[in-house]
Amino acid sequence: MKKTLLALAVLGAYAGVASAQSSVTIWGVVDLSINQIKNGDAKTTSMQSNQLNSNRLGFRGTEDLGGGLSAGFHLEGAMSNQDGNAGGLTFQRRSTVSLISQQGGEIRLGRDYDPSFWNLVFFDVYGANGIGQGLNLITTLGSGASTLARTNNSIGYILPGNLGGIYGQAQYALGQGNNNNKYWGARVGYASGPIDVAFGYGQTETNNPDKFKIMNIGASYNLGVAKILGLYNQNKNGALKENFYELSVSVPMGQGEFKAGYANVKEKGLPAGVDADANQWALQYIYNMSKRTALYGGYSQLDNDAASARSILGGTAQSNLAGHKSSGFNVGVRHSF
Amino acid sequence: MKKTLLALAVLGAYAGVASAQSSVTIWGVVDLSINQIKNGDAKTTSMQSNQLNSNRLGFRGTEDLGGGLSAGFHLEGAMSNQDGNAGGLTFQRRSTVSLISQQGGEIRLGRDYDPSFWNLVFFDVYGANGIGQGLNLITTLGSGASTLARTNNSIGYILPGNLGGIYGQAQYALGQGNNNNKYWGARVGYASGPIDVAFGYGQTETNNPDKFKIMNIGASYNLGVAKILGLYNQNKNGALKENFYELSVSVPMGQGEFKAGYANVKEKGLPAGVDADANQWALQYIYNMSKRTALYGGYSQLDNDAASARSILGGTAQSNLAGHKSSGFNVGVRHSF
Amino acid sequence: MKKTLLALAVLGAYAGVASAQSSVTIWGVVDLSINQIKNGDAKTTSMQSNQLNSNRLGFRGTEDLGGGLSAGFHLEGAMSNQDGNAGGLTFQRRSTVSLISQQGGEIRLGRDYDPSFWNLVFFDVYGANGIGQGLNLITTLGSGASTLARTNNSIGYILPGNLGGIYGQAQYALGQGNNNNKYWGARVGYASGPIDVAFGYGQTETNNPDKFKIMNIGASYNLGVAKILGLYNQNKNGALKENFYELSVSVPMGQGEFKAGYANVKEKGLPAGVDADANQWALQYIYNMSKRTALYGGYSQLDNDAASARSILGGTAQSNLAGHKSSGFNVGVRHSF
Repeated sequence: MKKTLLALAVLGAYAGVASAQSSVTIWGVVDLSINQIKNGDAKTTSMQSNQLNSNRLGFRGTEDLGGGLSAGFHLEGAMSNQDGNAGGLTFQRRSTVSLISQQGGEIRLGRDYDPSFWNLVFFDVYGANGIGQGLNLITTLGSGASTLARTNNSIGYILPGNLGGIYGQAQYALGQGNNNNKYWGARVGYASGPIDVAFGYGQTETNNPDKFKIMNIGASYNLGVAKILGLYNQNKNGALKENFYELSVSVPMGQGEFKAGYANVKEKGLPAGVDADANQWALQYIYNMSKRTALYGGYSQLDNDAASARSILGGTAQSNLAGHKSSGFNVGVRHSF
Repeated sequence: MKKTLLALAVLGAYAGVASAQSSVTIWGVVDLSINQIKNGDAKTTSMQSNQLNSNRLGFRGTEDLGGGLSAGFHLEGAMSNQDGNAGGLTFQRRSTVSLISQQGGEIRLGRDYDPSFWNLVFFDVYGANGIGQGLNLITTLGSGASTLARTNNSIGYILPGNLGGIYGQAQYALGQGNNNNKYWGARVGYASGPIDVAFGYGQTETNNPDKFKIMNIGASYNLGVAKILGLYNQNKNGALKENFYELSVSVPMGQGEFKAGYANVKEKGLPAGVDADANQWALQYIYNMSKRTALYGGYSQLDNDAASARSILGGTAQSNLAGHKSSGFNVGVRHSF
Repeated sequence: MKKTLLALAVLGAYAGVASAQSSVTIWGVVDLSINQIKNGDAKTTSMQSNQLNSNRLGFRGTEDLGGGLSAGFHLEGAMSNQDGNAGGLTFQRRSTVSLISQQGGEIRLGRDYDPSFWNLVFFDVYGANGIGQGLNLITTLGSGASTLARTNNSIGYILPGNLGGIYGQAQYALGQGNNNNKYWGARVGYASGPIDVAFGYGQTETNNPDKFKIMNIGASYNLGVAKILGLYNQNKNGALKENFYELSVSVPMGQGEFKAGYANVKEKGLPAGVDADANQWALQYIYNMSKRTALYGGYSQLDNDAASARSILGGTAQSNLAGHKSSGFNVGVRHSF
């Protein structure tokens, strides 16, 4: 899935004299699928990216500084390959520089994933991608916070890998004139053998009077014949509260893999009689032609209560969706490099 | 012209353990030229890209899946190097993922060239680039179709290379809310020794009442001392019709190459007395310093009838061009990598 | 700091047959810092790029054409890594194709640095980057000229390296409908042992009645224990004149380096009683963890006279700055690859 390009450092722009071996890694994912989705009465057929894994192109590398220290950079941009990535290549998935100590952990600066997002990825069997992801049900409650997945201007600390299964990270992100990005959060977990459990918390100042707060707990257990995942997430914005849980499972089947998930969200603090709850169930089958190339297909159905207008496919038109079903299936191919 | 970067797949983002050899190819073209163009009475001098070959930067690779199967990706973006590619790097020239069978052909998803475009490239001695290209005369008849060269959201099938000289492809592109991109088309050809002949057809739904239809036939014959190319193209949009033909020739001369072409277009279905016909002739000389680097110069002249405002250089201001000549020359350098 | 990727030229898009060895170099800089700046009474804390070196990602290569000739391309884009380079990857730092003769010099086409900028880089100890750079004081006098650092559509000539220490270059840039880019300029210098001295001049047509003219002289002397740099720059636009000088010094200290600078600017030709002069002093310490990775910190203070609103950090809000101080410090990490 990733390539390390053999590289030779040169002593100047046009010198061409090899002086030290180093490496730049270029890697990415092209994932394209055909999606037939029904949002209420509106049926659409569309080609989409990101349905098994997130489309991306990236450049990264590390430098050994000696004494257990290293430095590294990571530039990773999303791609919408169905339209030639018409929005242009940015590195908004991640764009960081790091100083890493094997003993003391990593300090990381830049645009990065935030700690309170990772449980939504690792304890959802769909990895926060596609029509089956639990994330289809999660909102920022109109808070304006832009920090659900990532923050700009962030300073992060990541625990080292030598803590006997305990892992974790903390992050502070500067608002820099935009409080929707002013964030702090932390995550701590424990992984050992078949078990993995983690807790995450984050809060965002926002440009509105109320903070946006997110708290989640996830756990997974690998039975061998199946891996079971559980996730609970609570979002808050003033009096509004969103309680979400998801149960999902993956079952390896030779070169293939079967996945299923059920997720449920309840909104609290709405005016009396307003019901914005929803639930979703989803199935997926993946056939791995190789480690890098897979065919996949899935089905998902999301039931909206009267005041919920959630969709299994964010990018499609969904007028009059409130109180209606969103459902559909896709088939696709994912190639990573 | 293309580089295959030696690459090693690693087992995880920071694992750094080499496990399998793979490859990412980075390639591209930087072609810059000085163009002195007279559109009617307006003379402009400008630096332009794309005059011998299309400027581009790309990333691609293939993975051998065994049993004659492979998977591949192709990301290729245009560049306007005279202004530092101010519009940003996209992959709108091509952005695809493919599954390829040596016996059965290739299935390709994404943004791609469409089948009805290729004859306009391969049977024009200028390869659909620059002030001499026949494409200067071809329009989409105000239909709004965005599919002359490429489509978004496309599903393509390409015949395998084992059919005794017969080649071909078919493509369907989803509208996805924009019927100017809703397209289907096909191309079939035969190449053997000095001869190459092909037929192409495509039609686009468009956001207007009428479909845009394109049909073309091309043939070339390589005499050794010269290669002769012929191309006929007919575009239709409701009652409007555009009949185009082009004859062109290339003559190898040691390290150099001489090219000449004549093209003619006639518009049908216009109101009585409206004449939007035009013709163009063009000459070019290319001096190959190496396979990758060439110097070139050319001259082109386009004669517009009263209601035609075609130009040999699309990007320049052309007020009052209708009924006037567009002519000029350029000199440039093309470097591919 | 730079990598040459081992690369193999292939004979066609999908041939996969290695035929000739060539090279594409990928290189870049990720530099991120925390900046606490006070502009007048407004204090801001922000993460910034470009404070020690300019953030960038680039692709380049050269081809040996034999007989002392070579061809090359250079694509280099800026990055704002704190926000994931939200503006998208362009190659506006430089985007050129070159033909190079060891004996005769280099001809270069595209978007490039202009000759009158280099003295502002090489004779400023901060290399025209960050809160301490002399460039914080230099303006284009409201002329609209976009040519202070670079030009689009440029044709450049660079002297060969065999002239006994004399170096130089000249450039002409086409306006192409925008006279703010219509420029010519030249630079000539002499470097030998510890001494380096250079003169630069440039003028831009502009879209206004008056030309923008820039003239500068710089010199440096390397004493071993310290390097001393001096720079004088004069900008003109009609009756307006801006006289700038800067003295700066760098002192190597083991793995570290200490830098200090003082710069002063005086505006002439303003209405009587209007004083837009300013001065700036700055300190910086750099600790090199390796050739590629450095930690740094600095302080800078800029004193504005009543009609000057210059800032040590361009991108921050600076309302009511006229006549007030701009000051602050930063700490950061720069990693190049």
